[in-house]
Amino acid sequence: MNENVALTADITSAVGPNHAPGLAEYVDLPNSTPITFTDNEYSTRLAAVRARMAAQNLTALIVTDPSNLYYLLGYNALSFYTPQMLYVPIEGDLYFFAREMDANGAFRTSWLPQEQTFGYPETFVQRKDTHPFVWVAQKLRELGEVNNFSHGQVGLEMDSYYFSPKAFEALVKSLPEYDFTDSYELINWVRVVKSPAEIDLMRGAARVCDSAMAAAFEAVVVGGRQCDAAAAIMNAQVRGTEDFGGDHPAIVPMLPTGAGADTPHLTWSDQVFIAGETTVVELAGVFRRYHVPMARTIVLGTPSRRLDYLAQSTTEALNGVLDAVRPGVTTTELAQIFDVGLAKHGLHKPSRIGYSIGIAYAPDWGERTVSIRTDDDTVLAENMTFHIIGGMWMDDYGYEVSEAVRVTDSGVETFTDYPRQLLTKE
Amino acid sequence: MNENVALTADITSAVGPNHAPGLAEYVDLPNSTPITFTDNEYSTRLAAVRARMAAQNLTALIVTDPSNLYYLLGYNALSFYTPQMLYVPIEGDLYFFAREMDANGAFRTSWLPQEQTFGYPETFVQRKDTHPFVWVAQKLRELGEVNNFSHGQVGLEMDSYYFSPKAFEALVKSLPEYDFTDSYELINWVRVVKSPAEIDLMRGAARVCDSAMAAAFEAVVVGGRQCDAAAAIMNAQVRGTEDFGGDHPAIVPMLPTGAGADTPHLTWSDQVFIAGETTVVELAGVFRRYHVPMARTIVLGTPSRRLDYLAQSTTEALNGVLDAVRPGVTTTELAQIFDVGLAKHGLHKPSRIGYSIGIAYAPDWGERTVSIRTDDDTVLAENMTFHIIGGMWMDDYGYEVSEAVRVTDSGVETFTDYPRQLLTKE
Repeated sequence: MNENVALTADITSAVGPNHAPGLAEYVDLPNSTPITFTDNEYSTRLAAVRARMAAQNLTALIVTDPSNLYYLLGYNALSFYTPQMLYVPIEGDLYFFAREMDANGAFRTSWLPQEQTFGYPETFVQRKDTHPFVWVAQKLRELGEVNNFSHGQVGLEMDSYYFSPKAFEALVKSLPEYDFTDSYELINWVRVVKSPAEIDLMRGAARVCDSAMAAAFEAVVVGGRQCDAAAAIMNAQVRGTEDFGGDHPAIVPMLPTGAGADTPHLTWSDQVFIAGETTVVELAGVFRRYHVPMARTIVLGTPSRRLDYLAQSTTEALNGVLDAVRPGVTTTELAQIFDVGLAKHGLHKPSRIGYSIGIAYAPDWGERTVSIRTDDDTVLAENMTFHIIGGMWMDDYGYEVSEAVRVTDSGVETFTDYPRQLLTKE
Repeated sequence: MNENVALTADITSAVGPNHAPGLAEYVDLPNSTPITFTDNEYSTRLAAVRARMAAQNLTALIVTDPSNLYYLLGYNALSFYTPQMLYVPIEGDLYFFAREMDANGAFRTSWLPQEQTFGYPETFVQRKDTHPFVWVAQKLRELGEVNNFSHGQVGLEMDSYYFSPKAFEALVKSLPEYDFTDSYELINWVRVVKSPAEIDLMRGAARVCDSAMAAAFEAVVVGGRQCDAAAAIMNAQVRGTEDFGGDHPAIVPMLPTGAGADTPHLTWSDQVFIAGETTVVELAGVFRRYHVPMARTIVLGTPSRRLDYLAQSTTEALNGVLDAVRPGVTTTELAQIFDVGLAKHGLHKPSRIGYSIGIAYAPDWGERTVSIRTDDDTVLAENMTFHIIGGMWMDDYGYEVSEAVRVTDSGVETFTDYPRQLLTKE
């Protein structure tokens, strides 16, 4: 159903969707969205999600995380600033709900048939006294009556980015007959082990990442503005390579500079780079929503002794971790290896040294599942993918170096191919 | 407190924060973040927020929306992918809570003294069995005992993007002595009327926006890849102008193309633009987090009759709305003027035609307050700022044209200066 209906017969016949014959030569050409995965890939994913739902004793799952929507449906649009959700029963058809203007076009990127997609009316958008999920709840009840939804426990992504407490309360109050429970990061955990098709996309993202870091190294220059360097990086990220067109990263380039390099998540200003200054660059290459991040540190001049010491110590500790990656090793062990490597040099890092990566949307490119730290005991398996980071934020200075990796059948594959060291420029 | 403490005396003296004299010539130079607003601007904002808190009978407000944190504190970092919050009592000191690695550097962009900023330990990050706000709640209780927090109603931003149901439940369960209530978009509503300093920043953002749209017009070209056009746009957005260094937009450029131009929130692919095709470009110029968006439609060739008709009708209806903007007019009236303007041409648009704009972070550049639609009855006042959009998403084609505007003392100021029409290229 189109959103803007022509109201008079005259206009309907002249410009309506049926393309009156006389207008054929003017009709706008269609543009196809590339299909990224096979039907078989999607059905395998859904089966894996349902197996986990069964294990968690869920009869249905409500999905709001845009990365999980992309994983299950291929749905890819910047529509998640208004509420949307996918209803996944343990068996039977899936139903997707979004704002009407987005629901109309969802089939352009999602495999889900248009008749399983419903748009809530515009009047529910950003209202103090109601919420779109009040409408969605009523539609779910109607669908449940027709399709005989079973009413066991229904999982909610209680810590998803685009599922607010107001949305949660709308569901709980509107569907008292539902027994809601936290699904935790159910689909995110299914995503931890990648398929061969996903690994191929990440290898493409890695080429984009290498190109973006090369652009960063070129653009961070004495007298240049930080924003100009960020622009050169984003240009490289989004352009991508000839073979792999770039996609938007979940996080824009982070460029903590000078004394600000002691804090990890600053972006940039319009100030210029100064001789002698250090800039930590953290960025990702993205191909069809799959992220491969990388961090490097650039010094404009001769590094200070303390920075040089920090860089050598941290890179060595990271190398030790990479040497240890293989199936059967635990994340605890990796974190301990890093700790021991740093301690040899009198250093300590209290934060995690990595996390699982793959599909992402703003504001994070981590999968929010595996953390590489001593209080996480995930056993590594083939085709898990991580961003492993030596990020050292000291007082007034800092150093960061990282690698995105795949666990192979016997060791590690580093996705990118960029010198793993402090980068100096005269 | 730094996050990575050197463990041995040897290293502490050589590379510690006190910069041993022998190392002076190597010490990394500081880099300052430009101060955007005066102390007086910040104290005026806080007073306005507290006046509204009093009107809503709140003794405290818990702020999680990154745009509201920037508004009150100047705090600007991509740290909101892990939970953070500002505690604003009706009187007395403010307290900010973030992940330890971010709390350490918050003072680099925020005016808040470092002793009012607390970092929760890394072990609370992304854990199934707990949440950072469990730690924050305990710290709030301690601070409340020392500072004698009053326990009336405490407002929560129940529909904020980075406040999950899990975070909400952590607060409710950990602080049973608090009486939480929805603050609705309290600070967002304070932000609706801009100060002269904010208007200045938006005029800067407008120059960036004009430059980005010019880059878009140049880059959308037959045979060029969509991703290359998006890269050129982002390059222009982030570079900005000589006077106004660009900042990252809350939403990346949206480029629905060809038949996909019937749905508003698609990004881009690696497909090439085809002769005859239509591309809807929606983007924002950003200067120090202030957004000025613009939408235009580009045709590569001669527009179809139906598109030309749609474009002329929609632009004319938008012009009618712009002519009517002045203090005292209501949003309902503006929406009705647009409806009547379209109806003359047999067209109808069910979605809102605009919203309030200003500070923004991903995933939305709207303020989530005023919507220009018939069921919103906001009375326009001087220095309100809106993005007014004629967005028409038909079956298989679409047209979008918009203006970012300021309500002046007697009419309208359009921020940007770009031809308001269907843009054609041979």
